[in-house]
Amino acid sequence: MTISSFRAELGDIPVEDHPRIVQQRSRDHYWYSPVLKAKLDHVTAEIVVSPRNNEEVKTVLRAAFKHGIAITPRGAGTGNYGQAMPLSGGAMLNLMNMDKVLEIKPDRVRAQAGAVMEKIDQETIAAVGGELRFHPSTYRMASIGGFIAGGSGGVGSVRWGGLRNLGSILGLKVITCEAEPRELDLVGEDILKVAHAYGTNGIIVEAEMPLAPAHGWIDMVVGFDNYMDASRFALGVALQDGLLVKEVSTYAAPIPEAYFNRHKPYLKDGQSVVLLMVAPVAADAMTLFVSHHKGDLRYRSDKATEEELKRLPPVYELAWNHTTLRALKVDPTITYLQTRYPSLEHLEKIISLLGDELPMHIEVTRQDGVVTLAGLPLVRYTTEARLDEIVAIHEANGCDVFNPHRYTLEEGGMKRTDQKQLDFKRQSDPKGILNPGKMVAWENPDFDFSAGKVWLFDGLNSVGAA
Amino acid sequence: MTISSFRAELGDIPVEDHPRIVQQRSRDHYWYSPVLKAKLDHVTAEIVVSPRNNEEVKTVLRAAFKHGIAITPRGAGTGNYGQAMPLSGGAMLNLMNMDKVLEIKPDRVRAQAGAVMEKIDQETIAAVGGELRFHPSTYRMASIGGFIAGGSGGVGSVRWGGLRNLGSILGLKVITCEAEPRELDLVGEDILKVAHAYGTNGIIVEAEMPLAPAHGWIDMVVGFDNYMDASRFALGVALQDGLLVKEVSTYAAPIPEAYFNRHKPYLKDGQSVVLLMVAPVAADAMTLFVSHHKGDLRYRSDKATEEELKRLPPVYELAWNHTTLRALKVDPTITYLQTRYPSLEHLEKIISLLGDELPMHIEVTRQDGVVTLAGLPLVRYTTEARLDEIVAIHEANGCDVFNPHRYTLEEGGMKRTDQKQLDFKRQSDPKGILNPGKMVAWENPDFDFSAGKVWLFDGLNSVGAA
Repeated sequence: MTISSFRAELGDIPVEDHPRIVQQRSRDHYWYSPVLKAKLDHVTAEIVVSPRNNEEVKTVLRAAFKHGIAITPRGAGTGNYGQAMPLSGGAMLNLMNMDKVLEIKPDRVRAQAGAVMEKIDQETIAAVGGELRFHPSTYRMASIGGFIAGGSGGVGSVRWGGLRNLGSILGLKVITCEAEPRELDLVGEDILKVAHAYGTNGIIVEAEMPLAPAHGWIDMVVGFDNYMDASRFALGVALQDGLLVKEVSTYAAPIPEAYFNRHKPYLKDGQSVVLLMVAPVAADAMTLFVSHHKGDLRYRSDKATEEELKRLPPVYELAWNHTTLRALKVDPTITYLQTRYPSLEHLEKIISLLGDELPMHIEVTRQDGVVTLAGLPLVRYTTEARLDEIVAIHEANGCDVFNPHRYTLEEGGMKRTDQKQLDFKRQSDPKGILNPGKMVAWENPDFDFSAGKVWLFDGLNSVGAA
Repeated sequence: MTISSFRAELGDIPVEDHPRIVQQRSRDHYWYSPVLKAKLDHVTAEIVVSPRNNEEVKTVLRAAFKHGIAITPRGAGTGNYGQAMPLSGGAMLNLMNMDKVLEIKPDRVRAQAGAVMEKIDQETIAAVGGELRFHPSTYRMASIGGFIAGGSGGVGSVRWGGLRNLGSILGLKVITCEAEPRELDLVGEDILKVAHAYGTNGIIVEAEMPLAPAHGWIDMVVGFDNYMDASRFALGVALQDGLLVKEVSTYAAPIPEAYFNRHKPYLKDGQSVVLLMVAPVAADAMTLFVSHHKGDLRYRSDKATEEELKRLPPVYELAWNHTTLRALKVDPTITYLQTRYPSLEHLEKIISLLGDELPMHIEVTRQDGVVTLAGLPLVRYTTEARLDEIVAIHEANGCDVFNPHRYTLEEGGMKRTDQKQLDFKRQSDPKGILNPGKMVAWENPDFDFSAGKVWLFDGLNSVGAA
């Protein structure tokens, strides 16, 4: 058997082959999407391999190359698009044993791929008062390598943009999948070949990331009777250059009262809310801004008791895709979309067309220097056909959709592949056994790179081009 | 004599009355404008009073109120609009003896009004690794109080906006001019009554300011054969959320070769240049971005020798109004304008209409969350009538002008006064003896607040309003 031959070459590298455990470790949070759930539910690897250092990663990849075993790398498995699901079976490459913070400087940190983001921040805050610029809502579980390979931005993106931006990642160490695996130290634009590529073109084993000042952020919850007032306030906050914030997001009623269970005592039924993370230095100015907008400041963590702080999750665990998770726990029929509204008027139009079928959730972010209403609306799901209609209604009204109900790199609209990335994959993974099935451009040589689609991770050729 | 009676009440507070010295201390950099030069050249105070603490300030103001002596507060006198020029004579209130840094916390600093901004930064960098968010090009001379009373933004505004933004000033201590002067601690929106009010409604004696991380900024000079290419690059830099910069500005040929004397060995004749201050953490990504834009990286301070660093001024001393100063030193007929170009197309249009009569200089800044082309073009001055035409050409082409050839608060377009500020002046300066002649709304009770003008410091009523 091929897998046995592969396994025989792994020496004492930890391996797990209990089918239940392997299946559980073969899954990410793809089940947020009923479409992906139907398509990917059967997917499982045959074994999970957990190397402890770069040499062991090379041993695994050498053996995989020799025996033609598919390799799907995985961090904490917190992605939502099936990024880390082994479509062709084979071996899961679990990188969570490689979790060391390697070097901390005042403005940057270097860590192994499996280091959990919260743990990195704990070390860098203690050492230099700095923290990662942004993180997903799964901060307490997600690994830095998984975030880079499968994520895009998150908490902090209102200030720093996203992973796709120049300067957001300083360096990556990648191991290739060849007869003799190589360690490549990628810097500059080479980084973008591997960022958000789902591990299809090399295994990220180390990352160097810039640090931002850690501010001891204050969580705030602000209520508004009208969702569009909440939206105007949130957009206004993000446009205030002097107000230092890390998170600004809006939730139309009834999302807060229906799904933010532990914050319920602080909420007022019928209100929409804005969630904020505010630097202490900006707290006074923010309360002034709230009152100018006639907002109802219902909670701020710097005035909370010890007991309240113990009971309540941080607001970032209500935000981003934790909103969807919390809604799903209450109502399993819920799913979500990823959208972009060019203006408040576009947002209002979509709300008028879809109403409570699409409970609105906006993350205010910076995209290419422009404050942007990035949508993560909930969807009261009925059928895949209706979901496609909702996507079409957005597009017909000038609003972009990055479809989270697709598991390939390209169809999700998050990353445009191009000839440079394809060439890189030819070098780093000549047999095409890294996370097979995820890069359409690899599977289909006739794939049209220039199809008129909007991509969040734009092609390499256009990064910073004049 | 009134001045003698006033002086008799000052005890041992230092006073200067030598006419030459008093006249020299009565001047700011108004002479950048030939219009202001003609109008204000004769202006002088009768004496200069230099209190050393808040009690002495109160003594001065008590005596001024009693004897009806005009009081014009002054920091280092580095303003360009006659902000600190005593139109009605009387006494200059020199605050440079009150120069202590009072308190440093990780995210904020409190200093006396006369503290020089560079000195504040030296202390805060040593103590907590933080520095002021922004500063004028006169950083090495200008006082924090003078900057707040007469300035608007500067180096750092590409990231942090300006003084007018909520959160840019945390608190001010102001002394009123009454029979019994009071100390007022202003926070929240009350700050905006006094910021950029030229000392017309209270004497700022202390300021609390937020700190940003000090990054050991790298100066870069990038050449382009075509000014519009330089402009596209500069705008692109400011839109890159991941590229941490403190200064981005553009200078059309022949400005660099004609006026940047000490940098001349690094420049190429005929090139326009972009000046940058870049965080070390962003240096690699910036050089990549430069090469994508086919820029010519002609100088970077982190590769300079000790000797070069000694010889060259920092790039911020080529920027903002130091550009005008350097041009004036070479060609005394030069003056400048303050403008705003809504887009690169607007900029190109103005250049096509005015050519080398208006050698272009742009400071890229954030204004209300939007990356903005703020112009400080040089003007090859001929007559006041032609200067007015150049202003009119801008306005006819949809470009705003904040006229630096006016010495009142309102006419410069930098600050809209309103009823709240006027009411505050009635309380803080009931006799109207603080910097008289500068607030039109005070002098002319029929002044129309709502005239259809664009203001950089918008009225209080509209700050952060929905």
